[in-house]
Order: sequence, then C-alpha cells, then structure tokens
Amino acid sequence: AGWSDSSQVSSPERDNETFNSGDSGQGDSRSMTPVDVPVTNPAATILPVHVYPLPQQMRVAFSAARTSNLAPGTLDQPIVFDLLLNNLGETFDLQLGRFNCPVNGTYVFIFHMLKLAVNVPLYVNLMKNEEVLVSAYANDGAPDHETASNHAILQLFQGDQIWLRLHRGAIYGSSWKYSTFSGYLLYQD
Amino acid sequence: AGWSDSSQVSSPERDNETFNSGDSGQGDSRSMTPVDVPVTNPAATILPVHVYPLPQQMRVAFSAARTSNLAPGTLDQPIVFDLLLNNLGETFDLQLGRFNCPVNGTYVFIFHMLKLAVNVPLYVNLMKNEEVLVSAYANDGAPDHETASNHAILQLFQGDQIWLRLHRGAIYGSSWKYSTFSGYLLYQD
Amino acid sequence: AGWSDSSQVSSPERDNETFNSGDSGQGDSRSMTPVDVPVTNPAATILPVHVYPLPQQMRVAFSAARTSNLAPGTLDQPIVFDLLLNNLGETFDLQLGRFNCPVNGTYVFIFHMLKLAVNVPLYVNLMKNEEVLVSAYANDGAPDHETASNHAILQLFQGDQIWLRLHRGAIYGSSWKYSTFSGYLLYQD
Repeated sequence: AGWSDSSQVSSPERDNETFNSGDSGQGDSRSMTPVDVPVTNPAATILPVHVYPLPQQMRVAFSAARTSNLAPGTLDQPIVFDLLLNNLGETFDLQLGRFNCPVNGTYVFIFHMLKLAVNVPLYVNLMKNEEVLVSAYANDGAPDHETASNHAILQLFQGDQIWLRLHRGAIYGSSWKYSTFSGYLLYQD
Repeated sequence: AGWSDSSQVSSPERDNETFNSGDSGQGDSRSMTPVDVPVTNPAATILPVHVYPLPQQMRVAFSAARTSNLAPGTLDQPIVFDLLLNNLGETFDLQLGRFNCPVNGTYVFIFHMLKLAVNVPLYVNLMKNEEVLVSAYANDGAPDHETASNHAILQLFQGDQIWLRLHRGAIYGSSWKYSTFSGYLLYQD
Repeated sequence: AGWSDSSQVSSPERDNETFNSGDSGQGDSRSMTPVDVPVTNPAATILPVHVYPLPQQMRVAFSAARTSNLAPGTLDQPIVFDLLLNNLGETFDLQLGRFNCPVNGTYVFIFHMLKLAVNVPLYVNLMKNEEVLVSAYANDGAPDHETASNHAILQLFQGDQIWLRLHRGAIYGSSWKYSTFSGYLLYQD
C-alpha cells in the first residue's frame, strides 16, 4: 500500500509538475520509494537519478483477550487466550499465550486481568522467558471481582518470549473481555 | 519546526561541506524536505536535483479527563469529558466523548475510570461504533472508590468511532483527574 | 525484509548498475545513509549526487520499578525508584524519580502503584513540574493491597520534568515489581 501510494508521488510523470503536498498524506512515512529525478545539464539532457528506498520498520502489535474463565488450581500456569483483537506481524501464539519477539527493539506491554469473584487473591507475573519482569495483585475483602494490571517497556532481542504467568488465583473471562494482554514494537533497533 | 530544522540541513550553503552527522539528530524523522543538490559536472556547472518529500505519517493522540462526577442513573450512557490534556490531530470530540478515526491504521487506547464511593458496581465498555471491544469492572465490599481500567490495540479504518460506554454505575470526577481516556495512532497504514 | 522487498520492486536498473544495497540495509530504518548515485550523462561522465540523510527521531523510553516499600509518613513526597527495566535515552533519574524531557514532542506516561496492606488510602499524582496532570487512588475495606494506576499523553517541551508524587499513603515494593512507572516519546516535534 505504502509502495503504490508513494510510487504515484514519485513517478517520472509527476516530476515536471509542481509538487502536490496533498499527496504526501497518503503513503507510509516509514517506507521510501525510488525517485526518478530529472537533471538538466547545460545541453538540457534528462539524466535520471535513482534514489533507493529506506528499509521499513517492522510493525508488531498484538492484543489478546480471554472470553472464558481460567482456574488451573495449580500454581504458575501460563495464561493462554482465546480471542485476538489484533496480531499485526503474527507474533502472538494464542494457544501458548506467548509473544515471540521477531526483531531487536524497544517494546511496550500492558495487561489487565479480572479475578474471579472468589476468596482467593490473584497474582500475575509478566515473564520474559523464565524471568519475572513485573507483577500484579488483586484481592478483595469480600469475594468480588478486582483487576490485576501492570505494564513494562523493555529492550528485547529476536527470539525472546513474553508471556503472562498466573502465579495463583483464577481469572474471569467473558465475551465483554475484561482480561486482556497486549504489546507492540515502539522502536526497532 | 521539522521543516525549518531540515531545511537548514539541506541549505545550499551546506552542500559543499562534508556531511555532518551531528545535524541529523535535530529534525523530525517523519518528514523530509526537498533537497536541492548541486551536481558539479566536468565543466563545473551547477545542476539542481529536486528530491521530493516523504509523505508524513499523521500524528494522532488524545488524552481526556473528567473533572466532575458522572452519574446518569440510566444504563449504557456515553462517557463524555470536560477536559483535554491533549488532542493532537483534533480527532476527539469532548462533548460526545468520541474519537473519530482520521486514517486507517493501528491504534492504542487506554482508560482509567474511578467509581464514586457508592454501593453500586461500575461497568465500563470500550466501544468501536456499537461493538464492545473490551470492558472494565470496579466494586468494593465497602462503599469506596475503585478504578475500572482496560486497554486495547486495534486496526481501525477511517470513520470508525471509539468511545467509552458507562454500562452501569457512576464515575468520580475532580480537578485531580482520576478518570481519563486516551488513544493514539501507533502505525498508519 | 522491508529492504529486500522494496529493492526487488524498486530497482529495475540494478542488473546493470553497481549499487551497494548493503549500505542502505545496514542502518536504522528511521535514518538514511548518504548514497552516491552515478549519473551517466551523454558524454558518459560520472556526476556524483549526494543525497543527505533524514534526521533521525530521538528514542526515549524509561521503565522504573520499586523493589522496596516507600512509606514516608509525610504528605506529597516524590516517588523515587531503585530499579530500571529500561532507560533508552538516559532521561530518567532513578534517585530523584524524575523524567527530564530531552526534546519537544508528544509523550505517553503510565504508572501502577500497589499500596501497602495497611488501613491508609493511597493517593498518587502524576506531576509535570509542579502541576498535577492526573491522579490515582487505591483503598480497601480490609487492610489489603490494591493498585493505584493511571496514564496520560502529553505535549512536552525540552526541560519539562515528569514525576510521581505520593500525596498520601504507602507503596509496596518487592523483587516482583508491582509498583512501576514508565514513559516514552511517541512523536518528536
């Protein structure tokens, strides 16, 4: 899409026209298409100059939700998901509940997990491979729902895996999607 | 700003100097200004080469807050706002509480809503047009404040509307801005 | 990947031209390396054309956590941190708990603070210099943990300082990092 848009902007047919800034909103700022630039020498001969494209930053963003409860009853289970709101770059494995880092860079992660209305506190860990990055807790005096949530911004390397671990407790799932986990690439290295 | 910064980089006075990479940190990476590049042929004639700008990614970010309570008393009311921390791109309608998607792309949304200290649970839905994307819940054994929050990353199309629906309950507003709703464009298509 | 895709599409002349795609492939996707493009005029003289790099957007992202409790006992104390998950751009001062804005732009901030399990409510303010931007509250009928969290998207100017103020209450810290504060540059002006 970025290609076809920008190639219109940079097509040789356009080079003798005055630049139309209106076109510059159409394309993708992170890609650049070759520009054929006419060079007028004293003899007015046209010399095409080919400017080659910039490499485009990868686009990575996932957003997953649970539409059913998760109550494993054993400690330290991975939180898996059953619905994807978004999986740009196809990096998130719904069944494993794991994000597979496709390229080195700075990534943002955020999660919200609603506890079941039972008298057991909820402990959730955001994991990088087997390491606890950040954690969240939710409990209630009364057996009610409450949300455990947290976030992190991380430098990751290709092949790192980010996932949520249900240390203890049970998660409420419904079609209204109270329990969510998302992440995206902020800056590619 | 990006324009004037970059135009300094590409000013004709600079073209005979060796490239100073220190300059490349000054400007805005998402815009590119035309560069007049003198080409010295064997006869030392100056031939200008016009390199056309990259299309610039749109910049879209809003951040809204409530400074007064919202207690409609009827179900499924839109959550409107009375204060804007930011509205880059002028996409958020404060009175309607609606974000109007200006361009296809991947967007991030997040909200935090503090319930009034009353014995009614708070249910909030993040809506795309008339569809529930994700939801949040807050309640307390005691009639106290508690925050309902969630987030989503979505592929949207121009004209989509994102808004918060107060399904049930009442929201606490104050000049300290406990109840907020924000979103931004992560990747333009 | 972006590079090889584009180069296939965009270089019909690559068969007979000597262009080192390796050079453009190496760099950051948001920067551009100077390209010397040989131009053959009718007299077959080589005219080098210097295409100047795009200015690169600054990369700013921090993510901090507390691994020990914070219970100052006096109102309106800065929340300082003792662990950095990330400090891209070296903008966050751990000891002061302050983010120093290095360049004008649009920034995103988010925090999660878990209160100590004591019978004192937790009030946290996100501050810009000495101004309250947004706030968060957590309490419990029972003396239990609960998270105070909020976020904001802001237009900042170079030299602005963003920090968290513990208005009242006490924060729980542990090696599991329940209490976190992060921010990043979304769009550089």
